[in-house]
Parts: sequence; C-alpha cells; structure tokens
Amino acid sequence: MTHDPKNAEPVLLVGSMAFDDLSLPTGEFPSVIGGSATYAAMAVSLFAPAQIVAVVGEDFPEETLEALRQRGVDTRGVERAQGKTFRWAGRYAQNLASRETLDTQLNVFADFRPKLLPEHCEARWLFLGNIHPALQLQVLSQCGTARFVAADTMNFWIEGERKLVEEVLSKIDTLTINDEELRQLAGEYNIRKAAARVLTMGPKRLVVKRGEYGAMLFDEAGVFYAPAYPLEVEVDPTGAGDSFAGALFGYLAKAGRVDPTTLRQGLLTASVVASFNVEGVGHAALSSLTPARVTARLEELRRLVQVE
Amino acid sequence: MTHDPKNAEPVLLVGSMAFDDLSLPTGEFPSVIGGSATYAAMAVSLFAPAQIVAVVGEDFPEETLEALRQRGVDTRGVERAQGKTFRWAGRYAQNLASRETLDTQLNVFADFRPKLLPEHCEARWLFLGNIHPALQLQVLSQCGTARFVAADTMNFWIEGERKLVEEVLSKIDTLTINDEELRQLAGEYNIRKAAARVLTMGPKRLVVKRGEYGAMLFDEAGVFYAPAYPLEVEVDPTGAGDSFAGALFGYLAKAGRVDPTTLRQGLLTASVVASFNVEGVGHAALSSLTPARVTARLEELRRLVQVE
Repeated sequence: MTHDPKNAEPVLLVGSMAFDDLSLPTGEFPSVIGGSATYAAMAVSLFAPAQIVAVVGEDFPEETLEALRQRGVDTRGVERAQGKTFRWAGRYAQNLASRETLDTQLNVFADFRPKLLPEHCEARWLFLGNIHPALQLQVLSQCGTARFVAADTMNFWIEGERKLVEEVLSKIDTLTINDEELRQLAGEYNIRKAAARVLTMGPKRLVVKRGEYGAMLFDEAGVFYAPAYPLEVEVDPTGAGDSFAGALFGYLAKAGRVDPTTLRQGLLTASVVASFNVEGVGHAALSSLTPARVTARLEELRRLVQVE
Repeated sequence: MTHDPKNAEPVLLVGSMAFDDLSLPTGEFPSVIGGSATYAAMAVSLFAPAQIVAVVGEDFPEETLEALRQRGVDTRGVERAQGKTFRWAGRYAQNLASRETLDTQLNVFADFRPKLLPEHCEARWLFLGNIHPALQLQVLSQCGTARFVAADTMNFWIEGERKLVEEVLSKIDTLTINDEELRQLAGEYNIRKAAARVLTMGPKRLVVKRGEYGAMLFDEAGVFYAPAYPLEVEVDPTGAGDSFAGALFGYLAKAGRVDPTTLRQGLLTASVVASFNVEGVGHAALSSLTPARVTARLEELRRLVQVE
C-alpha cells in the first residue's frame, strides 16, 4: 500500500445501494446507508478506483455519492430513479452471530436493469454483487473485456434460479459465497467436498466467507485459510462480506495480477478490512479507515498464525 | 518427532475411561471405548509416555488396557472397581456440528476418587481431564512437584460448582476449554474479552477449542490461532477435544519446555492429531496413527495459512 490507488485499474461494481434499518444490541439505527455496492466501493477505494453501477431513489442523499466520489469512486453509473431507495430492516442477535430480516422494500431496486456506460464496458476487473443472476448475465454479456470476473450470490437465487446461477458460474473466475450457501449450492455439507463440486461448475476459485471464523480460498494451488481478526469490539456485521469482497478485488486490481501469492495476501487484507467494518455502525468505521491502519492490523493478523 | 517418545518425561492424566454408545450419521456404534483419559493417553503416547489415573468397571476389556501399555501408557493407576464402567450415549446431527446426550450412566465413575501412586506424585506434566473440580483439587494437592498443570472443565461444573472451578483456575498453568464454556465462565460473549477475564482468574494461558474452526491460544505473548485441518471425511468428533489436549501436552513434555514457539507448534500438532481422531469411529483412527503421518499433515496445515 505504498502507491496511489488512483494508479491502479478500476474495479467495476454492480450491486445494490440501500437504506438499512438496523436493530443492533447497541441500539436502533434507522436509515443507515447500506447496500452491497456501497460497502464494496468503500473497500475497493482503499486500493483502487471503483466504478459503481446501481440504482437509488429520489431519497438517497447526494452527499453520500459525493463522499464516494471524494474517495475516487466513479458514480456516473448510479442511476437515480423515481421512487424510493431499496430498504432492508434487520435485527441482530445479542451476540451478532445471527440476524433476522424484519422487512425488505425493493422499491426502485425491483426494476433495476444495470446500465453500463461505454467506459464500464472496458472494465478489466468486474465484481457482480448479489443481484438476480439474470442481471449478472446481462452485465457479463456487455463486459467482454473483463479479464477477472467475480460474483456473489445467495440462498434465495440458489433455490429459485439454480439454472441461471449455474450459467453465471460457468462464466466467472471467482465466486464469493458464504459457507451455508456453498453447502446449499453443492448439496454437500463437507466444505472441502462442496468446494470441489462447485469448482467443477466453472469458476477457477472460490472464496468462502465464514464470518467470525475467517475465509477460505479454494483454487488450483489448494486451500488457503485467512483467519478473522479477533475483535474486542463488535458493533455491526452489516456489509462485512461486501467490504471483504471489495477489499480483495481492490487489492488484486492494485497489484494488477491474480497469482496464488497475491490472492492470499489479498484475502488477509480483505479479512482486516472486513474486521474494521464490524467495529462501527454501517460504514462508519470503513469510511474513516486508512491504508496505514490496514497495514498495521494486517501485521497483527499475520502474527496470529505465526509460530516463531 | 525424531526421537523416541519414551525418552520424554511422562504426562500424568486424570480423567474418565468409558463406553460410548454412538449414534452417528454413518450408523450405530454401541460400546465404543471412550473417555477423556483414553483419548488423551492415545494422543500423548504419540510424543511422550502417559500415565493414567482413572477407574473402570469389571466389564472394561483388559485388551484395551494392554493395547495402551503397548503404546507406552502406564495403566497402573487405572483402578478396576466392582460394577460397570461409565457409559455415555449420544446422537450426532447429520452434519456432526452438534450432538445430544441420550443417556449417561456414571456407574463406577460416580465414586471415583483419584488414587495416585507414589510415582505419579513426581509427575512434572499433569493434565486434569474434565472431572469434578473437587477431585481436580484433590489431585493437585497430591502433585506438588508438577511444573506444568493443565485442566479441562465443562458447563456442568461452571454452573454448579463455580467456586471450586475458580479455585482450580487459581492453581493451574493452562486451562483448556471450548468457546461456549469460555463465554459462560467469563460471562462475556466476545472471545477476546472473555479470555482476558479468565486469565485474571489464575491460569497463565488459555487454549480455546473451537471444533471445526480450530483453536486459539491466549497467553502473555498475545493470541495465536491454529486452524483446523479441513477434512474431506468426517466420521466421529467424539474425543477430538481430549486428543487435542493430549497431543498438545505430549508435545510439550517431549520438547521439555513451554515457551511461546513450542506452544504454538504444539497447538498446530494438536490440531492435526484431533483431525485424525475425527476420521474414524471412537479412537480407531487415532490408534493406527503414526508420527510420520502427523508430520505430513502438519506440513499441509502450515501451508493452509502460508502466503508465499
């Protein structure tokens, strides 16, 4: 993290921007800025420029978009549609280990059709956030130049749109997924067997997110395990998975390569960024994060598994 | 693991020997030889001589004790009492991540009073398995020479005998505990804060067992994380925690020292031994395990967290 993120190639992010009504053990936090693209962009921009393709409603604050631009995020692909922004309401358990959805209002997100600008179509680093797999395929058909494509998905699509999810899998390099979704996608509980099965569906590698237990990478070089940083203060896990993915792909774009060592360094870096994310409500902790603090905690994370 | 385990100082183990009736996803396995001292002794004996203090009933097979002696385990402290051996029956969930106790018959274990022989009282490495804390204290009062004392405990004693558990904590070097028990003991969900709190109760270090998510060490050098080896075949987790503890303390006894590096190497080694334990029913996989196979998998485990 010695050179300027602006010198790196941009990462194109397609996903959601939202309001989250968060019920946390520490209190009620209504209308927190959220969404997979927002969290991912905040994290990417620690390392590389980000470009967002998303939709917001008339109620989404212009200041948030301006703050993203200040961080080097290209928001020209953020469409402002008539109506309200996507809103999710959730309540976390006292220990933050589980959450329940209280309400989902798709609003303008219901009709979201990603509109790529000409410069987006030259993107070489593409992350498809967790949106309908049909939309992920639409974006893919417009981005023929991408040399690195990653996608996220979720149980809802795996259950309801398996064929489309499998088509997405056949066209991407990297799948990011949490462990429960991986098990569901593979129809296999054992993580190692499940990963092997999903790797036969197309992607070159899997990044399996395991929350407070870290993340695992499955690729041709084998298995890599990035532990989670053991936090003393855990406030809000919302967006941790998206900031993890954003940090990983931002890190790769900055490095300009996707070899096994860079990937592994990227996973550790992503684990660190996600850990900061959890320390504040929404993206509060992420927005004040600096590369220097990432580097310092990365050193702590490395020591966590160091024998000598 | 280059020199003969017999050259190491012995590890004295006080715990249970039992029959387990196991209901596993792969089938019903009645009257499997179990117990914390049995698993721990099998694991210790990969590295150092073990001495067991335990009680069995008239029905416990002499061949099992003979097989332990063949591995260099001193069974002179195993008392054969009139009546039946302790028996536990449990059913595991399909994914092995949880289990329910179907039946517990204490039998001769109900009246277990650890009887240390003169040679046991010279033990310098002592592991107090999960037995009544009053019995752990009895053993401690007889083992004034031990330079390294570890103990395990469980929710049952933390709830019902907290005062005695705290007295044990004030007299040991190392507590082995699983994450849920740690949270209960500390009255704190956050693992890092919980560990800090329990460290103020006496022990120099905590070894927190987290099952398929590995183990953590908290000591004056900070935090160390030993990942679990990602198994492709998971059969029976019974005894994994005890074989973990046995391997760790056997490793330390063989090394003859308890410095931060040796402890960390010991934790990784223990993680590997516990992983083998899970691959077979009861101690089937453990009993055929060789130091060479431990070394080979240890190399794989190290690679799991290696960036370059």
